[in-house]
Amino acid sequence: MTNGVGMKIAVVAPSCTLSRDAARQVEAIAAARGDCDLSIHPQCFESDGHFAGSDAVRLNALREVMADESIDALWFARGGYGSNRIAEAAAADLPEAARSKLYLGYSDAGFLLAAFHRAGLEVAHGPMPQDVLRDGGEAAIHRALNWIVRRDPASLEPGLSGSAMAFNLTVLSSLLGTAIEPDFSGREVLIEEVSEQHYRIDRTMFHVTGSLSVRRAAGLRLGRATDVPANDPDFGGDEEAIVRDWCARSGLEYRGRADIGHDAGNRVVPFGEPKR
Amino acid sequence: MTNGVGMKIAVVAPSCTLSRDAARQVEAIAAARGDCDLSIHPQCFESDGHFAGSDAVRLNALREVMADESIDALWFARGGYGSNRIAEAAAADLPEAARSKLYLGYSDAGFLLAAFHRAGLEVAHGPMPQDVLRDGGEAAIHRALNWIVRRDPASLEPGLSGSAMAFNLTVLSSLLGTAIEPDFSGREVLIEEVSEQHYRIDRTMFHVTGSLSVRRAAGLRLGRATDVPANDPDFGGDEEAIVRDWCARSGLEYRGRADIGHDAGNRVVPFGEPKR
Repeated sequence: MTNGVGMKIAVVAPSCTLSRDAARQVEAIAAARGDCDLSIHPQCFESDGHFAGSDAVRLNALREVMADESIDALWFARGGYGSNRIAEAAAADLPEAARSKLYLGYSDAGFLLAAFHRAGLEVAHGPMPQDVLRDGGEAAIHRALNWIVRRDPASLEPGLSGSAMAFNLTVLSSLLGTAIEPDFSGREVLIEEVSEQHYRIDRTMFHVTGSLSVRRAAGLRLGRATDVPANDPDFGGDEEAIVRDWCARSGLEYRGRADIGHDAGNRVVPFGEPKR
Repeated sequence: MTNGVGMKIAVVAPSCTLSRDAARQVEAIAAARGDCDLSIHPQCFESDGHFAGSDAVRLNALREVMADESIDALWFARGGYGSNRIAEAAAADLPEAARSKLYLGYSDAGFLLAAFHRAGLEVAHGPMPQDVLRDGGEAAIHRALNWIVRRDPASLEPGLSGSAMAFNLTVLSSLLGTAIEPDFSGREVLIEEVSEQHYRIDRTMFHVTGSLSVRRAAGLRLGRATDVPANDPDFGGDEEAIVRDWCARSGLEYRGRADIGHDAGNRVVPFGEPKR
C-alpha cells in the first residue's frame, strides 16, 4: 500500500490495444470501490499493426512499471496476441522492484505468466480490464480486483488444491520447448480454449500431452472451450472427451472440469510457488 | 516392380476421407500412364466423425500395406487432420517389408513423414490424390507419380541442395517435443502454411524457432502461405517478413522462398538420409 487510497495497480498492454470504453468503465469501477489506485499506462492505447505499439514500446512500458517501486500490482490490459514477442526480454535482469509485485492476466498474457513464474515472480491467471465489455463483465473486474487488493479467496477457482497453473491451451502449446517454458513438475495444470475447432483442440492436446515436461504435471483440469466453430464433419467427441482421451494416452491424470475460460465467469488461479 | 504394369502403389487415408471423385480421376490418370498399378485401399472411403475410420481402422489399413511385400510405394490419400493419432504406433516394430517402400504426402501426413523418417524409412513431401480436385491438379498428380515411379528430377523443389525436409508449419509446431520429432540437425527445413492468419503464423514461428532442436537446422526456406484469412487489424508484415524476423531472432539462417504449398504447384521434397 503506497497511498491513502490503497493498493496501486498499473495496467499495461503487452499484446493488443485496450478499448478506451473498457478503460473508462474499469476506472469508474475502481474509483467507486475506493480501495485501489488504478493507473492505465498510455501505452495501452497505442497501435502498431496487430499490436499495442511496437515490441520496443510494449516492452519499455512493461519494464518501466516493473521497475516502479510505488506499484503493487501489474494488471495486463487484455489478450489478443503478442506478449510472447517480449516475454523473454521482460523476464531478464529483473529489477528488485519487480519482485514485490503481483502480475495478473490470462489468454495471450499466459506467455508472460509463464516467463515471470519461471523467473520467480508472483503471477496469477485471472480476468483483465478488457473483460468489462463482456456480458456480466463488471463481476469479472471485481473478482480480479478483490484478488489483487485483498487476496479474496472467493475469487479463486473453487477446486484448487496443491500447486496449480492455468493456461489457454494454444498458448501453452506455443510456449513448450521455448526459453519461457515453466516447470510443470507436480503442478495441476488448468487449461481453457476459445475459438478453436475440435480437430484443432485435439491436435493441440496431442502436442501438449506429448511433451515430457507436461507429463511431469500432477494432472490436468479442463476449463471451458467457448466459441468453438463447427467442425465439418462433426468431430465425433466434445472437448472433454478429447482431453480425457489424450490424458489416458499419455498417462496424465484427468482431474475433471475447472471454472476458467474466456468469459465473465473466469476465476483466479494463482500459480504455485516457483521452484528456485 | 512387381508386375508387367510397373510400380505398385497403394493409397491409404491416415487422416480424412478421400473424395470418390478424386479417386476415380486419379485412377484414370494412372491407367492412362500405364507405368504404375494404383491400388486405392477401401479404408480411404470410410468415415468416423472427423476421420477416415477410427484410429484402429486407419492404423490397420496403413500397417497392412506397410507389411505387404508386393507394394513399392505408399501414397497418402489426403491431409485434413488425424495422422498424428496413429503415427507413433505406425512407426513401431516395423516389418522388413516397410523398409523397401517410398512414402509420399504432405500437410497432415507430415506427422507420418516425421515418424517414418525418424524410423529410417524413405519419405518425401509431395502432392496427394485429393489434390487432383485443385485447379491444375492433374499436373500435381503427374508430378507425384513421376517421382514415385521414376524419381524424375523435374518433380523436385528446384532449390534443393544438401539434405532437406518439408512441413506444414502448424504440423511442424505440433510435433515438436513429441515422440515423433525427427532430427533437424544440418537439414534445410522448408515450411508452408494454409488458412492461418498472420498473427497465428507469427505465434507458430515463435514456437518453432524457439525450439533448440529446430535451431540445429541448417536453415529455413518459406513456401507459400495460401488462403490466409484477413488479420484484424492488418498484422503489419506478410509471412515472409514474419519468417525473416523469427529466423533473425533465433539465429537460424533464412534461405529464401520454396516452391511448395497447398496448391497444384506443390513440388516434391525428399527427406534427407535419416541418421541411424
